[in-house]
Amino acid sequence: MTELAAAKAALKTQAVETPSWAYGNSGTRFKVFAQQGVPRTPFEKLDDAAKVHEFTGVAPTVALHIPWDKVDDYAALAKHAEQRGVKLGAINSNTFQDDDYKLGSICHPEASVRRKAVDHLLECVDIMDATGSADLKLWFADGTNYPGQDDIRGRQDRLAEGLAEVYERLGDGQRMLLEYKFFEPAFYTTDVPDWGTAYAHCLKLGPKAQVVVDTGHHAPGTNIEFIVATLLREGKLGGFDFNSRFYADDDLMVGAADPFQLFRIMYEVVRGGGFSPEVAFMLDQCHNIEAKIPAIIRSVMNVQEATAKALLVDGDALRAAQRAGDVLEANAVVMDAYNTDVRPLLREVREEMGLDPEPLAAYRRSGWGEKIVAERVGGQQAGWGA
Amino acid sequence: MTELAAAKAALKTQAVETPSWAYGNSGTRFKVFAQQGVPRTPFEKLDDAAKVHEFTGVAPTVALHIPWDKVDDYAALAKHAEQRGVKLGAINSNTFQDDDYKLGSICHPEASVRRKAVDHLLECVDIMDATGSADLKLWFADGTNYPGQDDIRGRQDRLAEGLAEVYERLGDGQRMLLEYKFFEPAFYTTDVPDWGTAYAHCLKLGPKAQVVVDTGHHAPGTNIEFIVATLLREGKLGGFDFNSRFYADDDLMVGAADPFQLFRIMYEVVRGGGFSPEVAFMLDQCHNIEAKIPAIIRSVMNVQEATAKALLVDGDALRAAQRAGDVLEANAVVMDAYNTDVRPLLREVREEMGLDPEPLAAYRRSGWGEKIVAERVGGQQAGWGA
Amino acid sequence: MTELAAAKAALKTQAVETPSWAYGNSGTRFKVFAQQGVPRTPFEKLDDAAKVHEFTGVAPTVALHIPWDKVDDYAALAKHAEQRGVKLGAINSNTFQDDDYKLGSICHPEASVRRKAVDHLLECVDIMDATGSADLKLWFADGTNYPGQDDIRGRQDRLAEGLAEVYERLGDGQRMLLEYKFFEPAFYTTDVPDWGTAYAHCLKLGPKAQVVVDTGHHAPGTNIEFIVATLLREGKLGGFDFNSRFYADDDLMVGAADPFQLFRIMYEVVRGGGFSPEVAFMLDQCHNIEAKIPAIIRSVMNVQEATAKALLVDGDALRAAQRAGDVLEANAVVMDAYNTDVRPLLREVREEMGLDPEPLAAYRRSGWGEKIVAERVGGQQAGWGA
Amino acid sequence: MTELAAAKAALKTQAVETPSWAYGNSGTRFKVFAQQGVPRTPFEKLDDAAKVHEFTGVAPTVALHIPWDKVDDYAALAKHAEQRGVKLGAINSNTFQDDDYKLGSICHPEASVRRKAVDHLLECVDIMDATGSADLKLWFADGTNYPGQDDIRGRQDRLAEGLAEVYERLGDGQRMLLEYKFFEPAFYTTDVPDWGTAYAHCLKLGPKAQVVVDTGHHAPGTNIEFIVATLLREGKLGGFDFNSRFYADDDLMVGAADPFQLFRIMYEVVRGGGFSPEVAFMLDQCHNIEAKIPAIIRSVMNVQEATAKALLVDGDALRAAQRAGDVLEANAVVMDAYNTDVRPLLREVREEMGLDPEPLAAYRRSGWGEKIVAERVGGQQAGWGA
Repeated sequence: MTELAAAKAALKTQAVETPSWAYGNSGTRFKVFAQQGVPRTPFEKLDDAAKVHEFTGVAPTVALHIPWDKVDDYAALAKHAEQRGVKLGAINSNTFQDDDYKLGSICHPEASVRRKAVDHLLECVDIMDATGSADLKLWFADGTNYPGQDDIRGRQDRLAEGLAEVYERLGDGQRMLLEYKFFEPAFYTTDVPDWGTAYAHCLKLGPKAQVVVDTGHHAPGTNIEFIVATLLREGKLGGFDFNSRFYADDDLMVGAADPFQLFRIMYEVVRGGGFSPEVAFMLDQCHNIEAKIPAIIRSVMNVQEATAKALLVDGDALRAAQRAGDVLEANAVVMDAYNTDVRPLLREVREEMGLDPEPLAAYRRSGWGEKIVAERVGGQQAGWGA
Repeated sequence: MTELAAAKAALKTQAVETPSWAYGNSGTRFKVFAQQGVPRTPFEKLDDAAKVHEFTGVAPTVALHIPWDKVDDYAALAKHAEQRGVKLGAINSNTFQDDDYKLGSICHPEASVRRKAVDHLLECVDIMDATGSADLKLWFADGTNYPGQDDIRGRQDRLAEGLAEVYERLGDGQRMLLEYKFFEPAFYTTDVPDWGTAYAHCLKLGPKAQVVVDTGHHAPGTNIEFIVATLLREGKLGGFDFNSRFYADDDLMVGAADPFQLFRIMYEVVRGGGFSPEVAFMLDQCHNIEAKIPAIIRSVMNVQEATAKALLVDGDALRAAQRAGDVLEANAVVMDAYNTDVRPLLREVREEMGLDPEPLAAYRRSGWGEKIVAERVGGQQAGWGA
Repeated sequence: MTELAAAKAALKTQAVETPSWAYGNSGTRFKVFAQQGVPRTPFEKLDDAAKVHEFTGVAPTVALHIPWDKVDDYAALAKHAEQRGVKLGAINSNTFQDDDYKLGSICHPEASVRRKAVDHLLECVDIMDATGSADLKLWFADGTNYPGQDDIRGRQDRLAEGLAEVYERLGDGQRMLLEYKFFEPAFYTTDVPDWGTAYAHCLKLGPKAQVVVDTGHHAPGTNIEFIVATLLREGKLGGFDFNSRFYADDDLMVGAADPFQLFRIMYEVVRGGGFSPEVAFMLDQCHNIEAKIPAIIRSVMNVQEATAKALLVDGDALRAAQRAGDVLEANAVVMDAYNTDVRPLLREVREEMGLDPEPLAAYRRSGWGEKIVAERVGGQQAGWGA
Repeated sequence: MTELAAAKAALKTQAVETPSWAYGNSGTRFKVFAQQGVPRTPFEKLDDAAKVHEFTGVAPTVALHIPWDKVDDYAALAKHAEQRGVKLGAINSNTFQDDDYKLGSICHPEASVRRKAVDHLLECVDIMDATGSADLKLWFADGTNYPGQDDIRGRQDRLAEGLAEVYERLGDGQRMLLEYKFFEPAFYTTDVPDWGTAYAHCLKLGPKAQVVVDTGHHAPGTNIEFIVATLLREGKLGGFDFNSRFYADDDLMVGAADPFQLFRIMYEVVRGGGFSPEVAFMLDQCHNIEAKIPAIIRSVMNVQEATAKALLVDGDALRAAQRAGDVLEANAVVMDAYNTDVRPLLREVREEMGLDPEPLAAYRRSGWGEKIVAERVGGQQAGWGA
């Protein structure tokens, strides 16, 4: 098989999970701008996600967020998904929107609040059992705003204790994916602020605990591909939350702010054997001002383009230049792949998959956007609050 | 008059304006945690602000935010304030929470939206006429999230045009204070992102246009005291929005994150003649998790402490060391003032002003906190949305 | 003329000035790694620069740095350049490597040191007269390391006074280009730290004073294309010092760290009419570990590629999408140009200019690299110190 | 024993190691400004370090840097130190100033260079045997400047292999302290860029491998005290390299840029049991423009002041406020200690130790500064190169 053929084969197996909440309204602390046609229920979110998969062919699963996507009958939800051609993916917990969580959840100074938070996480595992989801994705808003507010180390102890209880509850084939974040909504300390902290906890928990890299959750200037390479080397990379940022956790469309960085990340994924089912590729974005479904289709395509370029890096030439200490040539090999316009290749891949080569145009022609605006009238639009 | 006496005299004349919105609920995009006893009306906000002034003696004015503080009768509002011992301060505009402003306000691509935004600003000047406020404070959330979304330069043209119309409307003794901000809620470009942009616009508008420095609105590592010194040298420093930050626009209590920076800023204010009525000292903070009135009292005290230290810098010794090129000695003079515990001095100042030397303790003893929790039941609590 | 033809015509007129010092040794505070074949004299630097122009066709001028490129006979130097097919470009001053400049140069507390610095700048104008250079490029290492070390505002006064004297000395057709830098080598204050400060000084000096944007001289996250658009709108963009950075003033090859940013900058240049002789496009890089001449050729090519992509943006489509408020479509128009592989286009451009389509390969075949290693034996290699 | 008495007792046992290289010349890539009286030999560096200890009483050991402090007879060096009242401390390796290290040392693509680097580290352990030093401090300049230049993961493998060989060589009572650094001199990847990477390697190596926190080696905004608390909790904090920074690795005097941060760090040290012999407190600074010995005395005093404030935090009150979820009160307890002027307390401590209460004044009166300027004439001043 030629390199190009191998790249195409790999691209056809790619899977990018889309998050249910990205189909709902989102915004900043200043304003949430509602959009027409936004889903009112988890079922409608799945309908939208199915459209993304229908036109891209590489978005077969949908992440749920509890309680935003809480339903009485998860089997019915799973069946609804399957009927539309997608499956339920990771279960995302939420321990930041209850009034009790003002000073934290799993790290809260009061045992009763910690109990409530852990119970929620255990409930999420119950839901995984019901949905067949393999991954419990944990992000904690826990932290403090002021020096002295709480005991930094004590909070780590509480975190470790809570995670251990949840870890014990995991069944076969279930994993815990622990996400770190530099800051926000806490503004002084964050209890899992960097990959090192997430890694240290996962290491103690055991093999079912893995680290999630959200590409918007780092200090300015952080070399994310280094972290990816390191976590893969340690066998602790569980997945990605993709998005892009110019400043903080901006949650823009992945690839929109620094497409070269996304390419470098995907190159380390490929190089480190991370292009595999063990590493989950998920989007986690906020489409505050742009149309949501087209933005998600564009994001999936951006991941594809970065992946295609990463797959095209001439490994033999690169290793030869690296061994020779030829800085410019090694860099040139990488840049040659990056500078390639891979859109024709991806059009071919789509056609071979029986898809329209232009997902966005095909989606627009489908009339889905107009249909949901017309039909989804009344009710409560989904958003971060519901 | 001794130096100490001069410092005390200056501290007695200090005035820190508190913002009406800081008394209401606030939060992050993840959650707004409501607090008990929060005001339901602009009148109740003034009641709280009056308490801050009652116990600190240096918070005599209250900034309003339109439309959050819109009332039918501004004369009645002003009278209410006066009866409680405070006055109405700057009028703050809001062009970011209407659905029309999704892609901007005064810089929006559509003329009709720009018209609406400018009309709102003109209405704010009308309100200034009614309240006797001298300052129109302008912060624009305008910007873009994605490269190409709008024309960077075209937006500057629209901004200049809109500001010019508002500037023309200003009466005698009225000023326009233009605030800049690095990012948020826009995540790619912000239309007034730095002091240079604000300065360039103010310069063209004329002497009634001045720049506002919000201490949380800069890129990481920015030397804010340099900007303060430069704007004072240019005669273009209109005032401050004080708060503190570890990461982005965290809006923590001023002096909480880097008290040494606040001291350096206040030193440049003193050194540059900015400790005068021409420079407005305002708070602009969000008390997301801490009790609001005590936090504002603490913030006012933090400004006082930084000011006291700045006033204690031995100018003669400093200039001598600077002239001699004695780096360590010059630094030591500044650090000597900073390392001084000025709390005893401020207790004296307060006693001489007829105040309790411990504002927070006195406030707590007053029972106001319990009273508002008991009495402010029902109704719609004030927040960023109302 | 078609758009493509227009783009090609524009690309043929592009001129990127290379800096004489980039051909010499450079490094970090930890180590300068000497390279074989490095020039020993300004004449040899010109020989190398001529090779860059010979193979790229768009690097016709060479910036000099005084005193590093001080010679007895500038007419001879200029003639040497012309004989090799290039011309002398901007004169760069150096007020940071004399022992007297430990606490600053033009902003130094002592008048005698300021006199020495200004005299050096005046000498640079004399050299411009001799070489026919049009631009005096000023970068000042001035600043302080410790709070209190010197008077921030006093240093601005001294800066303004020194610049005014030099400005008066400028002849017809001569300009002063003032560069700003966030930090380094000063670590607390820098006397020209941002574009606002440079702009304010240039505005007062007059039309011959313009701002230079060094792409590595900003705070983390700064939107450089916004500054470019703003300075062009104000008529105050004098030129660029191109390089790239991941962290601070890394001085890597332009386009190596964030090629998308370089494209966005070049788009604002094109959009704002800056692709003209009034805006100087210069490189300012350090090739610490990579071969110097090939790195400079690659850098010139990177600027060409970014420019080509910027020229290919479909302006009509972009404006239509912006006017319609179609965020995704406007972004897509820009990304479409960026994602285009412009290397075939540039190969055509070069062939039409009578050049080898592959400058680096052609340079390597030329044997120049081997020749200078063989011939430049003995003597003192050029570097930042000489 | 009262709290104050306990604080005083603790302060008397404090030990801050000063680095031999801080007594020599240093600078930036732009210029090294030589100072008069700078030592020419390791023996003279020890003479200066002894003066710092003589006047502060808390700087009993001196870190060496190999090869800068290479001597024929380490026993003689140790004896010289003891005669002056100090001891030799940590041995610092140097794998960045040999021409072979252009592309790295222990991570270099070529085995021969890696061998050379590891041999140097082994030689450092030999020197530890000779000097009786307990700590081998490792900082690697290794990294890359350009994407693709070398294989990120391969370099980690080489790093692990090299460290393992050195670890095996350590004797009883000897430790390896591994330092991380965000960037510089490498500008794309750094092979040990963050605490997580250092921690992961130390964990695999074993109990004799510990992490060193250099306070200037983090991304902007990083919460260093969180890292300190975490490493202490993990039993992996080996020590500190103290200095301060406004921007990058500025290497200013510790406590000069953000004294509140230094206090918060020292608070976590105290709280986490790190105020013990297992945690080494070292300075690592560059006195580029200020007098060296006085700057080091000032730095030691700054550490003392931050420590004193940390020791004064009312732990009972803090824990009570934290347990009660009283954000403002908990913060107030911490700020109360920080705002205390501890200089009188430290004067008492010094007097009780038989020292002059004002170390800097006493040093100045001693005439040592004038003596070394007069006597250290001729020879090669020590600096980073020698």
